Amino acid sequence: PQTFTAAQTSAHIRGHIMYGRYTQELGVYAKEEAARLRESGQRRSVSDRSRTLDLLEYDKGRCAKCRICTVRCQKFLISRVGEDWIFLILLGLLMALVSWVVDFCIAICLQAQKWMYGGLDSNVFLQYLAWVTYPVVLITFSAGFTQILAPQAVGSGIPEMKTILRGVVLKEYLTFKTFVAKVIGLTCALGSGMPLGKEGPFVHIASLCAALLSKFMSLFGGIYENESRNIEMLAAACAVGVGCCFAAPIGGVLFSIEVTSTFFAVRNYWRGFFAATFSAFIFRVLAVWNRDEETITALFKTRFRLDFPFDLQELPAFAVIGIASGFGGALFVYLNRLIVQFIRKQKAINRFLMKKRLLYPALVTLLVSTLTFPPGFGQFMAGKLTQKESLVTLLDNRTWAKQGIAEEFDYIGHSQAWKHPQVNVFVTLVLFIVMKFWMSALATTIPVPCGAFMPVFVIGAAFGRLVGESMAAWFPDGIHTDGTIYPIVPGGYAVVGAAALSGAVTHTVSTAVIVFELTGQISHILPVMIAVILANAVAQSLQPSLYDSIIRIKKLPYLPELGWGHHEKYNIRVEDIMVRDVRYITLNCCYRDLQNVLLTGHLKTLALVESAESMILLGSIERAQLQSLLSQQLGRPKRLEYIRERAVAEKKRLSVMSNPGSDDGSQRVSQEVRFQVRGHCGIGYNVLDLITYLMNLSVQHWGNKGLFFCSFYCQKFFSHVYLSSQPPPPPPCSPLCVLQISEWEEMQLDEQVNFNNCKIDPAPFQLVERTSLHKTHTIFSLLGLDHAYVTSIGRLIGVVSLKELRKAIEGSVTVKGVKVRPPLASFRDSGTSSSENEATELHKLWDRHKSMSLPREHTPSESDEKSQ
Amino acid sequence: PQTFTAAQTSAHIRGHIMYGRYTQELGVYAKEEAARLRESGQRRSVSDRSRTLDLLEYDKGRCAKCRICTVRCQKFLISRVGEDWIFLILLGLLMALVSWVVDFCIAICLQAQKWMYGGLDSNVFLQYLAWVTYPVVLITFSAGFTQILAPQAVGSGIPEMKTILRGVVLKEYLTFKTFVAKVIGLTCALGSGMPLGKEGPFVHIASLCAALLSKFMSLFGGIYENESRNIEMLAAACAVGVGCCFAAPIGGVLFSIEVTSTFFAVRNYWRGFFAATFSAFIFRVLAVWNRDEETITALFKTRFRLDFPFDLQELPAFAVIGIASGFGGALFVYLNRLIVQFIRKQKAINRFLMKKRLLYPALVTLLVSTLTFPPGFGQFMAGKLTQKESLVTLLDNRTWAKQGIAEEFDYIGHSQAWKHPQVNVFVTLVLFIVMKFWMSALATTIPVPCGAFMPVFVIGAAFGRLVGESMAAWFPDGIHTDGTIYPIVPGGYAVVGAAALSGAVTHTVSTAVIVFELTGQISHILPVMIAVILANAVAQSLQPSLYDSIIRIKKLPYLPELGWGHHEKYNIRVEDIMVRDVRYITLNCCYRDLQNVLLTGHLKTLALVESAESMILLGSIERAQLQSLLSQQLGRPKRLEYIRERAVAEKKRLSVMSNPGSDDGSQRVSQEVRFQVRGHCGIGYNVLDLITYLMNLSVQHWGNKGLFFCSFYCQKFFSHVYLSSQPPPPPPCSPLCVLQISEWEEMQLDEQVNFNNCKIDPAPFQLVERTSLHKTHTIFSLLGLDHAYVTSIGRLIGVVSLKELRKAIEGSVTVKGVKVRPPLASFRDSGTSSSENEATELHKLWDRHKSMSLPREHTPSESDEKSQ
Repeated sequence: PQTFTAAQTSAHIRGHIMYGRYTQELGVYAKEEAARLRESGQRRSVSDRSRTLDLLEYDKGRCAKCRICTVRCQKFLISRVGEDWIFLILLGLLMALVSWVVDFCIAICLQAQKWMYGGLDSNVFLQYLAWVTYPVVLITFSAGFTQILAPQAVGSGIPEMKTILRGVVLKEYLTFKTFVAKVIGLTCALGSGMPLGKEGPFVHIASLCAALLSKFMSLFGGIYENESRNIEMLAAACAVGVGCCFAAPIGGVLFSIEVTSTFFAVRNYWRGFFAATFSAFIFRVLAVWNRDEETITALFKTRFRLDFPFDLQELPAFAVIGIASGFGGALFVYLNRLIVQFIRKQKAINRFLMKKRLLYPALVTLLVSTLTFPPGFGQFMAGKLTQKESLVTLLDNRTWAKQGIAEEFDYIGHSQAWKHPQVNVFVTLVLFIVMKFWMSALATTIPVPCGAFMPVFVIGAAFGRLVGESMAAWFPDGIHTDGTIYPIVPGGYAVVGAAALSGAVTHTVSTAVIVFELTGQISHILPVMIAVILANAVAQSLQPSLYDSIIRIKKLPYLPELGWGHHEKYNIRVEDIMVRDVRYITLNCCYRDLQNVLLTGHLKTLALVESAESMILLGSIERAQLQSLLSQQLGRPKRLEYIRERAVAEKKRLSVMSNPGSDDGSQRVSQEVRFQVRGHCGIGYNVLDLITYLMNLSVQHWGNKGLFFCSFYCQKFFSHVYLSSQPPPPPPCSPLCVLQISEWEEMQLDEQVNFNNCKIDPAPFQLVERTSLHKTHTIFSLLGLDHAYVTSIGRLIGVVSLKELRKAIEGSVTVKGVKVRPPLASFRDSGTSSSENEATELHKLWDRHKSMSLPREHTPSESDEKSQ
Repeated sequence: PQTFTAAQTSAHIRGHIMYGRYTQELGVYAKEEAARLRESGQRRSVSDRSRTLDLLEYDKGRCAKCRICTVRCQKFLISRVGEDWIFLILLGLLMALVSWVVDFCIAICLQAQKWMYGGLDSNVFLQYLAWVTYPVVLITFSAGFTQILAPQAVGSGIPEMKTILRGVVLKEYLTFKTFVAKVIGLTCALGSGMPLGKEGPFVHIASLCAALLSKFMSLFGGIYENESRNIEMLAAACAVGVGCCFAAPIGGVLFSIEVTSTFFAVRNYWRGFFAATFSAFIFRVLAVWNRDEETITALFKTRFRLDFPFDLQELPAFAVIGIASGFGGALFVYLNRLIVQFIRKQKAINRFLMKKRLLYPALVTLLVSTLTFPPGFGQFMAGKLTQKESLVTLLDNRTWAKQGIAEEFDYIGHSQAWKHPQVNVFVTLVLFIVMKFWMSALATTIPVPCGAFMPVFVIGAAFGRLVGESMAAWFPDGIHTDGTIYPIVPGGYAVVGAAALSGAVTHTVSTAVIVFELTGQISHILPVMIAVILANAVAQSLQPSLYDSIIRIKKLPYLPELGWGHHEKYNIRVEDIMVRDVRYITLNCCYRDLQNVLLTGHLKTLALVESAESMILLGSIERAQLQSLLSQQLGRPKRLEYIRERAVAEKKRLSVMSNPGSDDGSQRVSQEVRFQVRGHCGIGYNVLDLITYLMNLSVQHWGNKGLFFCSFYCQKFFSHVYLSSQPPPPPPCSPLCVLQISEWEEMQLDEQVNFNNCKIDPAPFQLVERTSLHKTHTIFSLLGLDHAYVTSIGRLIGVVSLKELRKAIEGSVTVKGVKVRPPLASFRDSGTSSSENEATELHKLWDRHKSMSLPREHTPSESDEKSQ
């Protein structure tokens, strides 16, 4: 059966975006072969099975009927395995189990720390050691383990998934190794009690699960090798990741859409809902079975009153939370980026940290855990509470303070931690917010698998609580004046704050839904929505989202979103941003042109035009295809043939001229060279060229000695090459001089290219000069394009790649090489000039046909003029 | 300023889908002109204003400063008007007001009916008359009013919006007339108390609002004429429609996405949320201001217990509700379609109804209201409750029945209506469900503005309640065995049932979210999600959604969704479904070819290829463009020029030959014809051709008499033509014979076409033969394509339109003309043959260039062979 590697997954994903085109990538041949083999194998196995079935029916043994039934069931099951819902259920089940197990392990880790801390309460120093050492060890282990097993597992994973779903190939991001590293690394990192989240990594883990499950299911046949299907399954997996992390199916689907997609297929929506619901259900059922809960309820259940959740006059306070959260969210993203850039820039620090890779995580952990040490500074910021405990207390529906004086916390519980004999609740909350803010921003830069959603969520809740407590102190009997007294619920403010801040950091609106699902109450829907929208409006105008920020830091390919309200985007056109100097090859070009194009440019795909004069775009060819064409032309079989011909000719010459004596030396030289020829017969063109050049050079300078030296070097070099590929059979070649080879090569290069065995993408995406930037952006993000050719009535006039588009959107300040002229664009008259131009172009084409001769009137200078 | 008509809106919408192409449609020229005029006008007004500003600053009057400030504010405001958020806030505000006013009017109408019914309780017959006449009058008025003002306002509006957002032009669907008809018609229809909903119409009303607001805002300038922007605003408007109808912003956004889109831009998501939240907020604030509510809460608030909403063991019951709702939903859609088709098929009924258009609504209303008459059959089905009241009682959290015996309804309220002295609550519920089911299916076929969501929602709630009451009767003390007794909450079942049935009918999952927002409780999230997903799975495999069903009934253009799990869709390729006999025109064709193409085919756009031999696709041209080319060639200016030339020649001839006498008769004939020539000089080609033919015929058959008759006929015909266009100035033409004209025309037709003044779409969308059906579907729905050309290395080999795609997806049973061969497709070997074919094709092209001559080797027979 087909082995399903990460590279192939990538190929699948890559393939998905090639809408309307036919690209046969490197791995696809192999895949098709494998598919055919497997198919035939399946047929065989089916026929085998039916034969066994027949045999069984003849065999009148005891349980023959039973066995027949089993075989039939098996057949039926295998035919069902291809169904989407089976896959989605398996995925949901698997992820629920993973989520539950990870949660369970984290809880045990945190309990262990508390137990150690509690057991050593006789000695503060020992207590401190235990409090600090435990997380340092766990984080260091997590960082080291991830570093060794799969460095791709570091960080959130959402930026990478966004990039992968855009159609970019990220190698090794969806392998089993990464899965193991991510799950274990995450468990250890979160078990340390550092302010880290599990949401982002869970999106990645779910995608890993989907990819691995796909691989596993493909063993049973079915359509698991279809690329479109795999990308759809990955999108569903992202929803499952969020869904089973928070037991929030709806919020999970929406959040994953907002965070990973630009355009979303509504038919995937269904898949996401199905898998996420199933996953959340199993996740919560496991808690019930484990006797943690009586029945299925929300993860952080709140008990706010239903009849009068909030007063209309409280809305300004909610709006203030929203706006402040917007600024806070932008600040968080900025701070996070600043820390990363600071550490990268400081070369001295950097060099030191690079040497001791585990030092940075350890130092950060040490700092954070020292500050949260409960008998120390931690007493002023509820340091002894875990993240989950803090959140539960913050969402509590009882008021902590009335008129500035802290109420008696008469009920037992974690809320006690917020109360300090000397210090006000407000001070504790402010300290908590400020300290956790920079701690979270710092902690998320540690190279372990971790997310930032949950820490931000808790900080937001604390901020909301602060506002809520202030409001409660200000209006002890509530604002409502009509009869009944409805006191203010600070817990509701905490909910609003949590949604607003996490929404601001991630630039999503669906945190509102996640909050409802997490708390199990939707009564505060309007305040939450208002705050989230305001927070988003503020944050989006100040900073990119945390995930986009990471994408930029990691230099992953991306396409920035079009801001709303940027009217000028509608006026910029493709002709303003396109690169006019397109690299192309013509149908009737010779191999030398091919070589030149390959040597001068580094584009992945090259345009194929009819001729340099007509410039009619016929398709595009991948660089790799051209390279193989070139190496075929100069490669081993041709070379051998030539050598054989030469040998025959040489023999004839030798038989005619008997032993010229003076040729003895050169004869030896040829014999020396023979090894080289034998050696490099199978090698690609570029190496060959280099060697020929080197040999010529050494013969010129040092004569025979140089040649001998060179031969020795080549021998070593090629033996290395052959070690990495399979050893070739010794070719039956005859002596030949290096200079003759290069002569032969020159001849070969002058031949016309034969595109017969070359895979051509016959319909690359085309734009027109007048397509607006807005539309271009839409098309690029819809189809996940990397580049598009700009044509005018069939003629290639330019090319636009992701790079140009990005530059145009982000403004002309950072533009290099590409001329962006939005100011000019607005002065352009509405389209008459361009249509005239079109007409002229067409006229030329028409004239050319009228004159009934080959289109040779167009001089290259004319096309040069055009490209000005 | 530019007047913004429905046709232009359509043009905008149409334009949106032409990604990567440049199509200048009919209205666009006018629009651009108008835009330029407006722009210059604006500049003038701005300069005017600045001049007034200067004047004011010189004027040292009392409130000069104040006035300067006002003018500046005005300027600032006008510059801000273009911002998206201003538009969205205005839209939200407007829709909230409309929704509230409509609700208010409906409530008054319903109250009036109750008051009449209550006032006449002395006489049952009078009571019946009042009960029945009132809705009949309202529905008849609604139907009549809509019919007269704007028949487009009939029905839900969601199918039409789905079609419009797909990029199809639906004339007159977004006009002010339609808006008025829809709002007033809807209010009357719902005020009648018939089982109709307001959701679908509200989607339409919101879109109308957006379109009209766009028109209004464009008076202030800005970017309101941009097509992409308008389509984005329409998508946001759909969300607003649902959002302000149910005060459900999140559910509104999601529902509108699921119902109207196939692919969704996440950047629109934000717009939808913003506008829908604002709208829902205002909608609920109005209720608070009107003292209906104390504060902002949910529309149908429930009060289920939070700590133990449901037991795990109740989940099977919820699943049963889901599956049964799935079947019920499919049945509803089927029933609805059946009724429409029955009425259409029965010709006798149809003819009668067509004559008396208002009879059908009146009859249906009579039937429904007779059956719900409370003292009559209505007493067994809670007939006296309005839709809203029924829903409130169904969602009540108290149990109606315990162990089969109805509990005492000791509390006052509408729930009393469900209790009947003789009959069980279960019987009442079953009767309610059955009767309302067919009544709703029937009522939604009435030609008034109405939706089906709310009736279905209520039926679902009743079904859920039935199951819940049964469960409560079965387990009087709840299922839970651990300590505390948690009785079963039938209201929770009602919530689940409502979401499941409405989800099944509309094929959406977001009804779950709508339910949470409507009830203000999210505690039943898992049962609701499970039931909705099961209901969707069942319903989607049986019937299309209600909206898709209406789209098919109304024969609107659509693209069926790809079902999930249809593996064979991945194996069908474009080459299996494409039409190989493509109509095309060549660059060097003559006008006769153009004429032939136009006369034989009816395609909207025609492919332009380089030559019939090379078949290299250069672009596509719209039919209208070609028609104008042809009429230009044979049109008035050319004809006049020719006539003038002829006249000069004739004069010369006449002056040479003095009065030949015998020519007198023909001279008279020419004088007769003169009128005709003058008459049809400005007419398009086809009419001209016909007339020439007719004249030739009549002259051949009847001589001068025939010509005279013909001239009389033409005079009448053209006077009619000229009445509808502007009258032409009398041309200075000289006498000419009809036969000469046709001769001249033949000459003109033989000339080569000059494409200079023709708008060519230079980059029509291209597919490759091997593109899978799945990908093709994705591309078509992503880009809203109507057709795509199939090319092979630049050569046109086929065309795929929406029709072929639809046929291929819906199966080969209904295929006419197009050969669909999915069975063959699965036997096709994996790609070698096709790539070989590609290579051969390329080889030919290459050979052609090698031989350095015009590509004439390809014989047409060869291309015929290919098309076999």
